[in-house]
Amino acid sequence: MKTTYRRRLDNLALAQNGAGVDLAAIVPGANLRYLTGLEMHTSERITLALFPQDGQPAFVLPVLEAPRVEANLGIEASFYTYSDERGPGTAFQQVAGDLRLEGKVLGVEHLRMRVLELRQLEKHAGDATFVDAGPLLFGLRIVKDKEEIEALRRAAEVNEGCFRQVMDHIKPGVTEQELASVWQRAVLEAENSQLSDIPTIVASGPNGASPHTTATSRRLQNSDLVTIDAFLLVDGYFSDITRTYAVGEPEEELARVYSVVQEANAAARDFIEPGVRAEEVDAAARQVIEGAGYGEYFIHRTGHGMGLEIHEEPNIVEGNDLLLRQGMVFTVEPGIYLPGRGGVRIEDNVVVTETGCETLTTLPRELIRL
Amino acid sequence: MKTTYRRRLDNLALAQNGAGVDLAAIVPGANLRYLTGLEMHTSERITLALFPQDGQPAFVLPVLEAPRVEANLGIEASFYTYSDERGPGTAFQQVAGDLRLEGKVLGVEHLRMRVLELRQLEKHAGDATFVDAGPLLFGLRIVKDKEEIEALRRAAEVNEGCFRQVMDHIKPGVTEQELASVWQRAVLEAENSQLSDIPTIVASGPNGASPHTTATSRRLQNSDLVTIDAFLLVDGYFSDITRTYAVGEPEEELARVYSVVQEANAAARDFIEPGVRAEEVDAAARQVIEGAGYGEYFIHRTGHGMGLEIHEEPNIVEGNDLLLRQGMVFTVEPGIYLPGRGGVRIEDNVVVTETGCETLTTLPRELIRL
Repeated sequence: MKTTYRRRLDNLALAQNGAGVDLAAIVPGANLRYLTGLEMHTSERITLALFPQDGQPAFVLPVLEAPRVEANLGIEASFYTYSDERGPGTAFQQVAGDLRLEGKVLGVEHLRMRVLELRQLEKHAGDATFVDAGPLLFGLRIVKDKEEIEALRRAAEVNEGCFRQVMDHIKPGVTEQELASVWQRAVLEAENSQLSDIPTIVASGPNGASPHTTATSRRLQNSDLVTIDAFLLVDGYFSDITRTYAVGEPEEELARVYSVVQEANAAARDFIEPGVRAEEVDAAARQVIEGAGYGEYFIHRTGHGMGLEIHEEPNIVEGNDLLLRQGMVFTVEPGIYLPGRGGVRIEDNVVVTETGCETLTTLPRELIRL
Repeated sequence: MKTTYRRRLDNLALAQNGAGVDLAAIVPGANLRYLTGLEMHTSERITLALFPQDGQPAFVLPVLEAPRVEANLGIEASFYTYSDERGPGTAFQQVAGDLRLEGKVLGVEHLRMRVLELRQLEKHAGDATFVDAGPLLFGLRIVKDKEEIEALRRAAEVNEGCFRQVMDHIKPGVTEQELASVWQRAVLEAENSQLSDIPTIVASGPNGASPHTTATSRRLQNSDLVTIDAFLLVDGYFSDITRTYAVGEPEEELARVYSVVQEANAAARDFIEPGVRAEEVDAAARQVIEGAGYGEYFIHRTGHGMGLEIHEEPNIVEGNDLLLRQGMVFTVEPGIYLPGRGGVRIEDNVVVTETGCETLTTLPRELIRL
């Protein structure tokens, strides 16, 4: 029986063949993890994997990473190691010769590969042509298999448990940072879960008007809205959930805004089914918000795919005519942001099913006053 | 009085002038934080700052990041925003025209800029020449000022407190992951400190033979050595400390190896003073280990600079003839790794003083048997 990784490599080779990409050059990150099981960070020491259409993948990597890579790699591969003293030049020269990179079409990840790796490839791969391998790899990863969906489901469950712990601490006087710490400690205590490197968002009162803030020393006040947007990993897969709570009774317009966002969230999720265009889901949410007169305050897309990365395809945005398919997983997170006053966002994680969608998140969506 | 950031920008302009770099193009990360105070992650939405030698810096950024960026920026700048629907193309076109990028020499960060940003610049900056801005920026950052050294000192103090909490849990039966969790919880409970995205290393028994492992479900056994290498941030500055402990009495050769590493660590630190070459510090540690017959098992450099990044200049490695200067901060972390059996690493953080070095780390270096 083929392993998961062998099957994914076969699919990669087929996709490369279809796209005319002779070799895919992949750096540490989600794509490398998807293809080989290897979890690694980029650093000033280059690690790069080359996937030819036929034959064994080849890794250029620092000698001190070799034991860990060999132990964790889910596939067979050849290794070109280098020391801190010598640097990677010779290893690149050797692999370029062995894989005959000269004149080939190399797929590189525009979203991830650095100029550092690109220049090494340009130097050693002669007159190779460089194309973006990103769409090809997102094409492979965009539909999740059963095991991936189970991991995403577990991640949502763990995240919801952490949200419940934070809810108990929401009251006037507590700082945004303290709430973020409660959530983070809950993640560390939950079995099998991992914090990501993305800062937890806790945005109270006027801070809520900025969708991508973090958590400050601001103390919650009576009648604040507080938006919590928090990310964690279970078995390498993300959960990304947002809820907005009220401290006591919010001002009337913010309560109305909350209802509009809640309705937009429901409208978008109701619209999801195989064959629908991604942009139509965005439009379903946007129409509700525009209809209520807040269109100019909904300043981001309705959602993004998620999996091994917090943001991946499908992008739920105007102009994306991609047709949704069963097994796609993404967020639905409409929001309204009133500068100087506050904001509301309600974010769920959904998976496209045969006939519609399943919402992996189960936390209440009604406004909770704490 | 000039602010810290204004002073740094002036130094950048001088360095650009000296290096013939017309504009520096900087993406989110340590360099952007150093220059502007802005803390941000890269994502699929491009954010890029352009620093001309004269005149105001310009930011290309997603409209939804604009409020946070404006609020947190320590400098004056102009903004070219774009929406999710339109993408960054027009914003790049406008900034390229306004700053007259055509034909200029652009400094880009090879270690950080992605092909994504590079291709946008190539597309809109006409026949610009691209050079690596990394050395220029490391040149600015390599000598830390008083505030930076204070932050690094606080980071070391917090990290040592977390190590002390972990020590209490080292005993047979506990897993590496459990020890990593104890350390991580201690970080979250410490005031003002932040976990980084680099996984905590807890490597016990034979796992210790791999310098860059993480923490597994392996349970500690009697006579194991266990190496803990842990990273955190205080006010944006890193601490990176390693200690190796014994569970009961280690086998005789590993105890001997420990003494050798301890001696190598001391020899390297004793050697540090202004005017010494970075490679000489590496050699001082290496000679001790080679003299004891373990040279082939010391498979990495002796240390690395640290500050806003976990790895920066100066690189304490063979071949680096950079002269040490007062205010440089780096790790000293010799190690010996015996495949299949175990490893030892002792890592301190030091700052070069007028006459030698100050070691910021104070945890004991003798082998502690727990």
